[in-house]
Amino acid sequence: MSMHLSDFNELPSHVWPRNACREDDGTVAIAGVSLPEIVEKYGTPVMVFDEDDFRSRCRDMAQAFHGARNVHYASKAMLSTHIVRWVNDEGLSLDVASLNELLIALRAGFPAEHITVHGNTKNREFLRHCVAAHVGHVVLDAPGELVELNEIAAELGRKQPVLVRVTPGVDAHTHEFIATSHEDQKFGFSLAAGDAWQAIVDAHQANNLDLHGIHCHVGSQVFDADGFKLAADRLLELFARVHQDLELQLPILDLGGGYGVPYLADDSELDIAGIAEDLITAVHNKAAFLGIEPPKVVVEPGRALVGPAAVTVYEVGTDKNVQIDEGRYRRYLAVDGGMSDNIRPALYGADYDARVVSRFTDGHQKSTRLVGAHCESGDILIPDFACPADVRTGDLMGLAVTGAYCYPMSSRYNAFTRPAVVSVRDGRAELMLRRETIEDLLSLEVVRDAD
Amino acid sequence: MSMHLSDFNELPSHVWPRNACREDDGTVAIAGVSLPEIVEKYGTPVMVFDEDDFRSRCRDMAQAFHGARNVHYASKAMLSTHIVRWVNDEGLSLDVASLNELLIALRAGFPAEHITVHGNTKNREFLRHCVAAHVGHVVLDAPGELVELNEIAAELGRKQPVLVRVTPGVDAHTHEFIATSHEDQKFGFSLAAGDAWQAIVDAHQANNLDLHGIHCHVGSQVFDADGFKLAADRLLELFARVHQDLELQLPILDLGGGYGVPYLADDSELDIAGIAEDLITAVHNKAAFLGIEPPKVVVEPGRALVGPAAVTVYEVGTDKNVQIDEGRYRRYLAVDGGMSDNIRPALYGADYDARVVSRFTDGHQKSTRLVGAHCESGDILIPDFACPADVRTGDLMGLAVTGAYCYPMSSRYNAFTRPAVVSVRDGRAELMLRRETIEDLLSLEVVRDAD
Repeated sequence: MSMHLSDFNELPSHVWPRNACREDDGTVAIAGVSLPEIVEKYGTPVMVFDEDDFRSRCRDMAQAFHGARNVHYASKAMLSTHIVRWVNDEGLSLDVASLNELLIALRAGFPAEHITVHGNTKNREFLRHCVAAHVGHVVLDAPGELVELNEIAAELGRKQPVLVRVTPGVDAHTHEFIATSHEDQKFGFSLAAGDAWQAIVDAHQANNLDLHGIHCHVGSQVFDADGFKLAADRLLELFARVHQDLELQLPILDLGGGYGVPYLADDSELDIAGIAEDLITAVHNKAAFLGIEPPKVVVEPGRALVGPAAVTVYEVGTDKNVQIDEGRYRRYLAVDGGMSDNIRPALYGADYDARVVSRFTDGHQKSTRLVGAHCESGDILIPDFACPADVRTGDLMGLAVTGAYCYPMSSRYNAFTRPAVVSVRDGRAELMLRRETIEDLLSLEVVRDAD
Repeated sequence: MSMHLSDFNELPSHVWPRNACREDDGTVAIAGVSLPEIVEKYGTPVMVFDEDDFRSRCRDMAQAFHGARNVHYASKAMLSTHIVRWVNDEGLSLDVASLNELLIALRAGFPAEHITVHGNTKNREFLRHCVAAHVGHVVLDAPGELVELNEIAAELGRKQPVLVRVTPGVDAHTHEFIATSHEDQKFGFSLAAGDAWQAIVDAHQANNLDLHGIHCHVGSQVFDADGFKLAADRLLELFARVHQDLELQLPILDLGGGYGVPYLADDSELDIAGIAEDLITAVHNKAAFLGIEPPKVVVEPGRALVGPAAVTVYEVGTDKNVQIDEGRYRRYLAVDGGMSDNIRPALYGADYDARVVSRFTDGHQKSTRLVGAHCESGDILIPDFACPADVRTGDLMGLAVTGAYCYPMSSRYNAFTRPAVVSVRDGRAELMLRRETIEDLLSLEVVRDAD
């Protein structure tokens, strides 16, 4: 509660979209488009993507990792035709993790040869689509899949490039990492147990697979290079063994995603250039030490590219003071969305930065809980934040960094419909995904006339 | 691991639908309809609702609470036109908690006068629909809403029956409850702080509101009457004060939902008849002690009616042994759904009972983790269960008690489409909700031709 009154009118620049600013009249605009005007046209809740913010982060990441093709946008973070086209325009590669993600990317015109396919349980239909579409790489995740993919590639008369996903025993999350010998997870082949080596040998010997490299993933919301470096260190030993025993120079070291983004004003920014330089230098040094050619370092950011690009705008509804002890009150502000459009606070305890975007606020700040409109006590968007007392019913509240894992994980809980999704650039707004309607919900019903 | 080998072929009768049984050929049928045949026709994942199971639970609950109209089915647990019709056929009342839930119920032909409307932040449009549709009761949740509803009712020339939602300081969850003076939650008016009394006075004095009673909700997954009884005890004091100070005999004491269901074989069954008798007796005794007429006890079960009615059937995909320590292995079995169709394990740590439904299994049992097909390590359906070693790729795995809060909270994560939902009764299967398609996903896209 020690914040200055003016603070709530600021938009922390490392948290809000790069083109967000508060205008002289107190409203917030992104890329020159007024959020209240977007609300007037598209209603609430609405998600607004700053196209240029997204593209500029793609370019930063491409520069940091020595080439746009080395950067694979992880489409699970947020997938739509518009976003696939932006990714393609910027020359990045693309990761998909399901048949539908693959099909959506292909329909949006993304070149198959720059698509890498993930998934812990790809069925035959999915694998067949991958081979038939000539995807760049399939990431092998289990012994049975390796056999099945090889069969399918033979049937279709093709040699399918693959990576082998390895669990190196490195778990890196937000400013710390744990290194063990084994990993207890559903993805990949264990390095320590020897499964990884066996998969590499099998992939190398499979007639219709073309082994191009090794993949690993160390965590999410990672802000430094240490975990990635330890994983790379362990995998490069495997590259050296492949070189020595199989006389094979694998060209790709795919270190996965997990690059963090600041969600709150107090969070520090990701120094992607520094991390990349640190990581690539470590890879080159280790490769030199092992006497092998350094493989190309490939990364798979999702959240780091798309998370900060979007703001979700809600309308404030009920405003209620609840006595939680004798003399102690908590204000509950409700908005017209919640766990249906953003499950992350309930699912992961995720934090968000909220600001009124429709006007200046100037009241004293008080301890406030921002809740959603769902019939569930746990439908809380922000458990506690310092919010001006003058915020009231009808104000528009924006939550920043809602570009990743919000829309894709959205539900129709309480028969809510998905928000409209709008992109903004150079003073123009464009609808990316229309708001769902009750007709969309009812379109799944198979109903005979009542008896 | 000490279970008998035969156990995995059993279907615990208090967990699986009332009409589920394993046939002589090892397949599981519900209401005489073979699950493998349903899969053949509708694919996987598929959710199968035992209509008669649901209806019989409605009748049990109606009997326990002295009349079907006293039982309000909480539609947030699972809403579809079929289910609304079953609820109506059985003569129950209905709870809704959003405008769309209300509209779906009305379109399905449910009588408005037997609908009660919840919601912590009902906007003007929602309230107007309630009044215009002549819903049975609106449950008041905040001071501003009371004022607004009264205005709208005046505009529409109607006197709207209402309940006041009160937080009595009772938090009852699974076999224990906490009683405090205050509650720190978004719903209702505090009893201890005096807000509840004020709301009752205001509602009584509002020209266009007709106060019928008091509502509270004490928790979820509750298996005994203690928490409900303490809440009723506190609320009846309020009834007595209303009677004395306002000379008003309120007819309805709505004690909300929260009746538990067993998810695992080791969980005990809910004794709904015993709880209801215990509760109603306590209400009558307390009312007699206070010298007031006992109000009618109304309840709002959702999960207890619809949860056990459904089984979700998946196909088993990847089968992988992962070394998690020297010499210690965990088997990972993956299925073709996961957190998109059932977020409850990830969100609440919920447990489920899984059985192979396509054949007898007979292998030694081993420690198994059942995981989904999503690109996320946390996509785990069952962290650890004793599963026969002979379960293999292509088997059909059924998860029981997936009728509540699975489909309504389902997402399209990784561009997955919602499962088909099928009802079975008397040897016949009927599609309730068709499987979503990629065209449904793409129908929200607003795309110009590529430049």
